[in-house]
Amino acid sequence: MMSRDSKFRVERLTIVGVGLIGGSVGRALRDASAVTEIIGYGRNPVHLSRAVELGLVDHWSTVLSDAVAGAEVVIVATPVGAMPGLFQQLAELVSPTCIITDAGSVKKKVVDAARTYLGRSMARFVPGHPIAGLEQSGVEAAAGGLFKGHKVILTPTPDTDRKAIALISALWETTGAQLMNMSPERHDRLLALTSHLPHMLAYALVNLLAGQAQDESECFDLAAGGFYDISRTASSDPVMWRDICLHNADELLARIDEYQELMDLLAALVRSRDAEGLERMFRTARSARSRIEDRRKDGALG
Amino acid sequence: MMSRDSKFRVERLTIVGVGLIGGSVGRALRDASAVTEIIGYGRNPVHLSRAVELGLVDHWSTVLSDAVAGAEVVIVATPVGAMPGLFQQLAELVSPTCIITDAGSVKKKVVDAARTYLGRSMARFVPGHPIAGLEQSGVEAAAGGLFKGHKVILTPTPDTDRKAIALISALWETTGAQLMNMSPERHDRLLALTSHLPHMLAYALVNLLAGQAQDESECFDLAAGGFYDISRTASSDPVMWRDICLHNADELLARIDEYQELMDLLAALVRSRDAEGLERMFRTARSARSRIEDRRKDGALG
Repeated sequence: MMSRDSKFRVERLTIVGVGLIGGSVGRALRDASAVTEIIGYGRNPVHLSRAVELGLVDHWSTVLSDAVAGAEVVIVATPVGAMPGLFQQLAELVSPTCIITDAGSVKKKVVDAARTYLGRSMARFVPGHPIAGLEQSGVEAAAGGLFKGHKVILTPTPDTDRKAIALISALWETTGAQLMNMSPERHDRLLALTSHLPHMLAYALVNLLAGQAQDESECFDLAAGGFYDISRTASSDPVMWRDICLHNADELLARIDEYQELMDLLAALVRSRDAEGLERMFRTARSARSRIEDRRKDGALG
Repeated sequence: MMSRDSKFRVERLTIVGVGLIGGSVGRALRDASAVTEIIGYGRNPVHLSRAVELGLVDHWSTVLSDAVAGAEVVIVATPVGAMPGLFQQLAELVSPTCIITDAGSVKKKVVDAARTYLGRSMARFVPGHPIAGLEQSGVEAAAGGLFKGHKVILTPTPDTDRKAIALISALWETTGAQLMNMSPERHDRLLALTSHLPHMLAYALVNLLAGQAQDESECFDLAAGGFYDISRTASSDPVMWRDICLHNADELLARIDEYQELMDLLAALVRSRDAEGLERMFRTARSARSRIEDRRKDGALG
């Protein structure tokens, strides 16, 4: 299935869940002429037809058995809550050589579900998470360049088939993504800090604003300024983020606790008018933020 | 001092504190040929010379009496902690007709300090706050277009001279800003929510990351993605933000409390795996965020 230079090339690939991520993978693979035929599976014919119009997939079906028939690769790009049920069905439907991957923002629970439900296909399941998308969602936002320069984390188990890992790695490289490898546990711990927690802050902040805005319509005018960037992630898909919270609950709760402690410390510094302590905390943040900025310039995001 | 069409036009104007805000006001007024001579005052000759090179001010002095001699308008654009001392000096130095304004991010304490120290100049003091700048600081970041389409809040008292208010309004209109009027108390309450609190979240979040990054260098790679926007404000000037915390402490602490309650609620929803409650909270946030987005499109930020 792979040529010697590791280029990704298959005949038939199925994308289960053609939203922002699934649609963008389809488009990127089409743009690279890496797949002869891309099938989209979903529940909503309107979205799926639109995905064909937008050139994200070639065909679509709302019947999973039709959609995955003959597929060499299946990419599951739904909210993680839908994955266990899909794995259960896929185990019965895919060919014995089919390679399955996912794009879930949580990995431990997804790998657990795969182990429970995928049966003999488990060895050819390569868990993945593309770190892209931010606050957008839906098929209309899909774009072939979405993954360019972004990280994709693969979290294979020791039993995962090496050729399957190589193929899925090649798939993501074709989209322009940069691969990282780590355990599902490590992924969930790191992402709880760098992604899941920040989303919770934004959600809480915007809820606070929404609660006051009935009296304070000027809040919204003012929020168009500095508030804008920090609240951007609050636009993210509610169902996707509900599922992330439920499936990475323990790590997320640990991060929320640590974060709340720092907010308590900050409040204590304000309460005691501790000028030096506040300035020290703000300098630490600025210096860490500039290290993040450097990573970005070094091409982390291209 | 003003022509009939409310255009701002004076002979001599002094900017006390030539950083991002002060420098940008100078540049915008020069670009509009609104002032014959702009004097910059500060403590650092290197920064002040640079401000002349960059075309932000015409001349500079590190001696306040020289800098404000003959000035029709003085703009105080320092961190708010430096303002009481400066007001005390300005009261002795400015002409009896000189109009003073400031650009502080906190208004109640600044107005209190002005009332205490400005003496007979208090009637011609027009408290102001341009909502611009975000995470940048320093003279190098100054730009004539910084205020274009951004809000500037004026918080005059009932005793503030009407002509002084009209002149400072015209000054900001010349920079392309949109004026809002409110009481200092209302300003501080609203800004605690829309600006000061979000900065605290970002500071706490980036401090949390910095604390873990010694062990987890991958955090920084991953933080270049979704974490990026939400942490942007953590680059803001530590001294400026120390002063904002100290001078709007009560409103900020009230907002932190309300925010912590929402984070506790969110954590409780995660802990009890309350899918419906989480989704509801996220939908509320998304809908509020889209109202902010609409305001922005309507030209709030140009």
